[in-house]
Amino acid sequence: MPQYDLIVRNADIATVGDRYRADIGVRDGRIVAIAQGLEGPAARELDAAGRLVTPGGVDGHCHFDQPTNDGSRYADDFYTGTRSAACGGTTTVLPFALQQRGSSIQAAVDDYHQRANGKAVIDYAFHLIVAEATKDVTQRELPMLIEKGYTSFKIYMTYDDLKLADRQIIEVLATARKHGAMTMIHAENSDCIAWLTEQLLDAGLTAPRYHASSRPMAVEREATHRAIALAELIDTPILIVHVSGREAIEQIHWARGRGLPIHAETCPQYMFLSAEDLGIDPDDPMHGARCICSPPPRDKANQQFIWNGLSSGLFTIVSSDHAPFNMEGPHGKRAAGEGAAFDRVPNGVPGVETRLPLLMSEGVLGGRIDIHRFVELTATNPARLYGLYPRKGTIAVGSDADLVVWDQFPEGQERVLDNSMLHHAVDYTPYEGMRMRAWPATTVSRGRLVWHEGRFLAEAGSGEFLPCLRPQVPRASNPLEKWL
Amino acid sequence: MPQYDLIVRNADIATVGDRYRADIGVRDGRIVAIAQGLEGPAARELDAAGRLVTPGGVDGHCHFDQPTNDGSRYADDFYTGTRSAACGGTTTVLPFALQQRGSSIQAAVDDYHQRANGKAVIDYAFHLIVAEATKDVTQRELPMLIEKGYTSFKIYMTYDDLKLADRQIIEVLATARKHGAMTMIHAENSDCIAWLTEQLLDAGLTAPRYHASSRPMAVEREATHRAIALAELIDTPILIVHVSGREAIEQIHWARGRGLPIHAETCPQYMFLSAEDLGIDPDDPMHGARCICSPPPRDKANQQFIWNGLSSGLFTIVSSDHAPFNMEGPHGKRAAGEGAAFDRVPNGVPGVETRLPLLMSEGVLGGRIDIHRFVELTATNPARLYGLYPRKGTIAVGSDADLVVWDQFPEGQERVLDNSMLHHAVDYTPYEGMRMRAWPATTVSRGRLVWHEGRFLAEAGSGEFLPCLRPQVPRASNPLEKWL
Amino acid sequence: MPQYDLIVRNADIATVGDRYRADIGVRDGRIVAIAQGLEGPAARELDAAGRLVTPGGVDGHCHFDQPTNDGSRYADDFYTGTRSAACGGTTTVLPFALQQRGSSIQAAVDDYHQRANGKAVIDYAFHLIVAEATKDVTQRELPMLIEKGYTSFKIYMTYDDLKLADRQIIEVLATARKHGAMTMIHAENSDCIAWLTEQLLDAGLTAPRYHASSRPMAVEREATHRAIALAELIDTPILIVHVSGREAIEQIHWARGRGLPIHAETCPQYMFLSAEDLGIDPDDPMHGARCICSPPPRDKANQQFIWNGLSSGLFTIVSSDHAPFNMEGPHGKRAAGEGAAFDRVPNGVPGVETRLPLLMSEGVLGGRIDIHRFVELTATNPARLYGLYPRKGTIAVGSDADLVVWDQFPEGQERVLDNSMLHHAVDYTPYEGMRMRAWPATTVSRGRLVWHEGRFLAEAGSGEFLPCLRPQVPRASNPLEKWL
Amino acid sequence: MPQYDLIVRNADIATVGDRYRADIGVRDGRIVAIAQGLEGPAARELDAAGRLVTPGGVDGHCHFDQPTNDGSRYADDFYTGTRSAACGGTTTVLPFALQQRGSSIQAAVDDYHQRANGKAVIDYAFHLIVAEATKDVTQRELPMLIEKGYTSFKIYMTYDDLKLADRQIIEVLATARKHGAMTMIHAENSDCIAWLTEQLLDAGLTAPRYHASSRPMAVEREATHRAIALAELIDTPILIVHVSGREAIEQIHWARGRGLPIHAETCPQYMFLSAEDLGIDPDDPMHGARCICSPPPRDKANQQFIWNGLSSGLFTIVSSDHAPFNMEGPHGKRAAGEGAAFDRVPNGVPGVETRLPLLMSEGVLGGRIDIHRFVELTATNPARLYGLYPRKGTIAVGSDADLVVWDQFPEGQERVLDNSMLHHAVDYTPYEGMRMRAWPATTVSRGRLVWHEGRFLAEAGSGEFLPCLRPQVPRASNPLEKWL
Repeated sequence: MPQYDLIVRNADIATVGDRYRADIGVRDGRIVAIAQGLEGPAARELDAAGRLVTPGGVDGHCHFDQPTNDGSRYADDFYTGTRSAACGGTTTVLPFALQQRGSSIQAAVDDYHQRANGKAVIDYAFHLIVAEATKDVTQRELPMLIEKGYTSFKIYMTYDDLKLADRQIIEVLATARKHGAMTMIHAENSDCIAWLTEQLLDAGLTAPRYHASSRPMAVEREATHRAIALAELIDTPILIVHVSGREAIEQIHWARGRGLPIHAETCPQYMFLSAEDLGIDPDDPMHGARCICSPPPRDKANQQFIWNGLSSGLFTIVSSDHAPFNMEGPHGKRAAGEGAAFDRVPNGVPGVETRLPLLMSEGVLGGRIDIHRFVELTATNPARLYGLYPRKGTIAVGSDADLVVWDQFPEGQERVLDNSMLHHAVDYTPYEGMRMRAWPATTVSRGRLVWHEGRFLAEAGSGEFLPCLRPQVPRASNPLEKWL
Repeated sequence: MPQYDLIVRNADIATVGDRYRADIGVRDGRIVAIAQGLEGPAARELDAAGRLVTPGGVDGHCHFDQPTNDGSRYADDFYTGTRSAACGGTTTVLPFALQQRGSSIQAAVDDYHQRANGKAVIDYAFHLIVAEATKDVTQRELPMLIEKGYTSFKIYMTYDDLKLADRQIIEVLATARKHGAMTMIHAENSDCIAWLTEQLLDAGLTAPRYHASSRPMAVEREATHRAIALAELIDTPILIVHVSGREAIEQIHWARGRGLPIHAETCPQYMFLSAEDLGIDPDDPMHGARCICSPPPRDKANQQFIWNGLSSGLFTIVSSDHAPFNMEGPHGKRAAGEGAAFDRVPNGVPGVETRLPLLMSEGVLGGRIDIHRFVELTATNPARLYGLYPRKGTIAVGSDADLVVWDQFPEGQERVLDNSMLHHAVDYTPYEGMRMRAWPATTVSRGRLVWHEGRFLAEAGSGEFLPCLRPQVPRASNPLEKWL
Repeated sequence: MPQYDLIVRNADIATVGDRYRADIGVRDGRIVAIAQGLEGPAARELDAAGRLVTPGGVDGHCHFDQPTNDGSRYADDFYTGTRSAACGGTTTVLPFALQQRGSSIQAAVDDYHQRANGKAVIDYAFHLIVAEATKDVTQRELPMLIEKGYTSFKIYMTYDDLKLADRQIIEVLATARKHGAMTMIHAENSDCIAWLTEQLLDAGLTAPRYHASSRPMAVEREATHRAIALAELIDTPILIVHVSGREAIEQIHWARGRGLPIHAETCPQYMFLSAEDLGIDPDDPMHGARCICSPPPRDKANQQFIWNGLSSGLFTIVSSDHAPFNMEGPHGKRAAGEGAAFDRVPNGVPGVETRLPLLMSEGVLGGRIDIHRFVELTATNPARLYGLYPRKGTIAVGSDADLVVWDQFPEGQERVLDNSMLHHAVDYTPYEGMRMRAWPATTVSRGRLVWHEGRFLAEAGSGEFLPCLRPQVPRASNPLEKWL
Repeated sequence: MPQYDLIVRNADIATVGDRYRADIGVRDGRIVAIAQGLEGPAARELDAAGRLVTPGGVDGHCHFDQPTNDGSRYADDFYTGTRSAACGGTTTVLPFALQQRGSSIQAAVDDYHQRANGKAVIDYAFHLIVAEATKDVTQRELPMLIEKGYTSFKIYMTYDDLKLADRQIIEVLATARKHGAMTMIHAENSDCIAWLTEQLLDAGLTAPRYHASSRPMAVEREATHRAIALAELIDTPILIVHVSGREAIEQIHWARGRGLPIHAETCPQYMFLSAEDLGIDPDDPMHGARCICSPPPRDKANQQFIWNGLSSGLFTIVSSDHAPFNMEGPHGKRAAGEGAAFDRVPNGVPGVETRLPLLMSEGVLGGRIDIHRFVELTATNPARLYGLYPRKGTIAVGSDADLVVWDQFPEGQERVLDNSMLHHAVDYTPYEGMRMRAWPATTVSRGRLVWHEGRFLAEAGSGEFLPCLRPQVPRASNPLEKWL
């Protein structure tokens, strides 16, 4: 019997803390040895040949096969979504089990397991979207679900069918604190957006680019400040999702300076897209609809603020917020918006496969962040934050053998991004035409090669559900004491 | 016929901008001449004898004879309330016509005129409290009432029967912008207060001092930031009322630095009271109820932040927020709270008579602000902000002859404040025992001596209603342009 | 004998605090009565015909006939300089008596009186430039000069022959505190400028526009923060002169928020010029030299920060920093820089005549500040700050009769600015071609018409020297107590 | 021949990024394998028995056997200093080769090698103190020394015999940028301290506690802001050493928010001591002299700001700033200060041995920071910052086998700190009496047990000199471009 199922040889290993050359020995899907000149034998050997090897990506924010109420339809199910993730170097995804109002969260969880079962090709866990924070939800269901391994909630401050009032947010945060869960918050002020949207539509300003006008930065900033204040009241950590620019960043920076445990996520759309991408193409007035997402991309100057936040430590994680809507077809963005207005276009852009290559290419190889920060933002921190560490998010003895071996392309030989290179089921990528300086050569999930030499190799259903531990920040049980 | 009805001789006149010695000539209630050695004759002469003469105070925030729903009762009606004001040097008051939900604002205005008529002894204007911002209110009633001289609204972000949702606040602000009115905002987060109050009551923490625990500064800060964001969205000036301490101040300071027209009010209770004053007297557990008001007085360190804001220019006005509830008796604070909890105690402290003497004594004579800033905060700015300038708020040719002649008391001969010295109908003052270094010797209202040599001299009903002009900050008509 | 020497009738009077229609009675150079329908007789009557009348301007920062060491020469002496001021509505100027190193300040004062005597046409006081803060200077000369009416010092943090080390600045501030003087600080970091200048010259970058590169905002910001810290150490007020943009503003805003008495001045060049104005004209490489001053004008976005600071209250005064160097001729900017580099060009732009019209035109009539703030910034505050109030800086009984009657020009009929309209001895104005919406019709200095109907009317030497009182901020005598 | 020289079994390994149970295989002083159930044989086995194992500490700031000019004497030479370090879990130290004015840096380096040679028991590198930044120093010596492995400089903004003027600082920073070195800055404003000290001594305030009065936080804040501005000018990273409290922290927080690469160090004295510790013991007026160091410990409220900065990511490293002066004896603090004043007392406290146990005890076990942050602050980040990574600062294949095995003590069984437990040559510890919850059980340096079972085991001279690589932040070569 071989000592190892797999040995990855001559790896240039990079983790949050370390960078070194070694061989990695894998048995039963886990890393059991890291050494110079590791003695085999092994069932399979993969020669990294000195190439960079990072932990498989953990995408803490993506949407697959989510139920909708408005006629839109997510193009990716768990098969195509996780396939796309795997081919882009991501080995763990955390999509959302979305509570329907009037229904329990457990029902959403059960339904979502049905959707994932037999389809996912890499490992996955679920965040819970709390759309109605009744007493039963906060006092019975959530504590029970936390025990079962669903330890992160997402709540919305906007969207009519999802948004929670401040009081409900408080109740969710108090539950998170008491039982040790993490709360993700979509921070935009709903009433401001509704009022601005009405003004715009009344004025006949319906084109995609007015989506950005309907959600200015002040609207995101207000909700961010409010979310911080509610978290401060309850004295519990939160994560502000998809931070888009300067004004929200300043609030978070301020909160950190006061010692508050406010975490923040950003996404590639805020580094690489701008409000101009929502603009009118003279030949196709709806073209900008591809880049409609919320919060909207800001002006180009804001991209630098995002990069500053990535290098300075302000951001905790980078996720894709993969929201796969087709542009064309009956459920597409075009059909929804055409003859109507920007506010009917489904919100979101695809990106589960491009997240890591874009950040490696422009962030690490572009000199804006170092390789350790790359690993932290894309793998280790999301794993920690959502209770998947140390199983996921690193390259260490005892952890799952989730790895990416990277190809790098010298200047002048970059790979030009084209939607046909991608493995999602969406008919476009907003990053079309970007020149990539790196791309995953091989993705290893629990010791299995799932993407290798340009081929996708995994079986549908080979991904496993991961119950999550609690995030690691310890908190006492009674927030009231703080105010006495 | 005498040239003048009144000449005030040898006045040491102080206004926002000036300080000089002169005689003041009054005819038909207005100042018509200011000169050295003014030639008469005059029907009456008053020798100021070199004493300081300031413009009569304009109290931009006080409550008289306001309808209540909870069994509490305001101790002062328009007669006792304006009498108290006059004896404390104030010659104009702006109480609130409070809309009842389900009813029109016009009805509240009509009712309030009834209450003032034949009672007020000094001039008065009305703010409108908008408790329900229906379309009819924002699109018909408010524009009509603005035309009639009711140009300032107050809205609440807390109190169940008053608070407006963000969308309603936006509609009120848009109306204020379009028609040129000023919006005053009570900024505290209602849901946070409700949740904390529940936790406190559940824990049996019912004493007056827990009122402060139920409304920490973060709760005021959040609502202040939100109010600023909504005003920024609509691009219209607002006034944050009764700012209590550091955290709200920092938000306002930040907004000012961005060029936003955010005005701020503070009150004597935040300079002279602290959370300790809500504490338990061993002999009278309810004693602290006298100082229950919202936001609550903060810790003593915050008093310095208030003073800094007064001297630095951060605060626009100082008002009393006179809210006259008795301590004793069937409608008193004691009866409401005893056997119940802090949340049943009517909120507010009396102060319409002590506002000017306290600020003159501790502010000007205590070296913390100069006399020009005193006049600005207590008279000129409230007059400007609420459309009463130049009729009120200054000593200038053409303005109403509203004047205060000040007595000053040397060190060691201060006047010790006692509720029996005051002319309100409330059975206590929270400032009992303070050593006053100045007190109005004479108050002149439209040329009439209403307080002189320790006697109150005016007839009930001699005060006039003042229709207000629009505040002076010009704004364009379409806030949407800002976001395109 | 007429009752009055002059009556100005039908004036639309604006002061810091007030705005009203009245007649102004003048006797012996002072205002003795302000009234409706003032009874004469008067030796002379001037009908303002309802036009705006403001206090004569006080220019707290201008340079006339100042000795130089580098071959440059100030084009204006006290005659042409004060003539230019008077024709632009300014009735008081405060130029600088500059100590030569190795010499006493008294010597500079004596010399400067010689230069002013018989020449000045309006009233003037002197600031003292302390170029060497020896013990004799700080302990003997300055206290003695303060007693004699020289109550403000200017110190430099840059320029090799003027700059003081931190220790010297501290000694000057301690003297200012002890004896009640005001310290003006030119805040730029000398060493940074020297290093950058060397780099630029080494790289052959000698054109005027590199002047801006040699003094970036960070260099001004650092010195501003340092000046604030030293003032905080000594606990005494200071004024930061000629603040140019965002970064210095942010430091001052921060200091104010902490309650520190930090005053700030800006100048028209930072509202109306930008770094682009230093750029290369293809036909005249030296053209940008006209706009070389220090700190340099910043980019256009910074102009808005200056306007925000003017409307928000951050700035205390607006001065001209009139520094009159010719462009042409043997001592001109062109000759100095041509064949050499930007660092040889004399620093400064003329502006004593255009200060008030520019701010009235673009500030008040352009809707950016109100008329009260205009008066405060240009007259009342400089008078207060430098101990000339209440004699100067306002329109009030007892004050000098220093007045400006304004002509306003409707849209389309603006007056286009041309250097030939001005009365200085400089051969250019940096504001050439600007469309002016207002200009002084009449300037009155101590009751004398000095500029009227397009003619300059005063005699050389008719201006008087003004000994200054102490500025009004009271301070205790021992800064050490603060730190114990 | 055994496969390994040492195997550490059953280690609970914690690094910046990871936490896992494994065995560590060491050969030739380096880690060559990390695995579960590592197969031997090994020359020696050490059973960690599940105890926590962290990387050996890297102390980036300590003083041993440094030449002095003022009669003081460092109690520790390289033998006792490194012995003390080793017994406290530190395996790498970076003391300072101090340039004497008038002499070369090379001479200081040569002399310092003499002092270290044959004495050090653990590995060491040298920082260079630049006391005179002549052209020869910045253009010849420093570039040459950087090539040889001396890649970090320390410069002082205070102390008469060390401080550099801004221009010199700029030259050093420009050299650091061009050649890729790291600059450490002691940021206090020298002139402010000198002036305050004179005032204090003049007033007879000579006791140790006035040391704190002579260096208030504003003095540290100013220099910190200035250092940031100079680094921004040159566009190069710096490290502010020994940050003591809120005001300097706020400057650094602000700089980080702007994306500037400003690093910061703090020390245990700012977490555990306060200005009260400088206070007068009634029985020993000089007692407070033990805690005299610069900047001084601040008030207790500031300790929380330090902890916030440690948990939030603001601080990059925690060092000891071990400055070993005896309290007693002819060269002691008492003798220097007694009969003289606080300013004669040698500045500094010992702490090379207590740094790690204090931070483990109060930081990690006290719940204020997690174990990863502990490793980052005390080992990985100093190694990275000073070019010693990956050889030092982590537990990874290829790195030196520098390890600490920790003993932890349950509540009630803490070890009470006593100077007799320590291995330095100093006669006191400022932390006397603190209850320690953890202490190193074993320290391993390059595979050798140097501290084990309460015994110090290393030979004098067994430590090696480490030439340093460049720190890892890449920078372009011409800072000028930034300002054009």
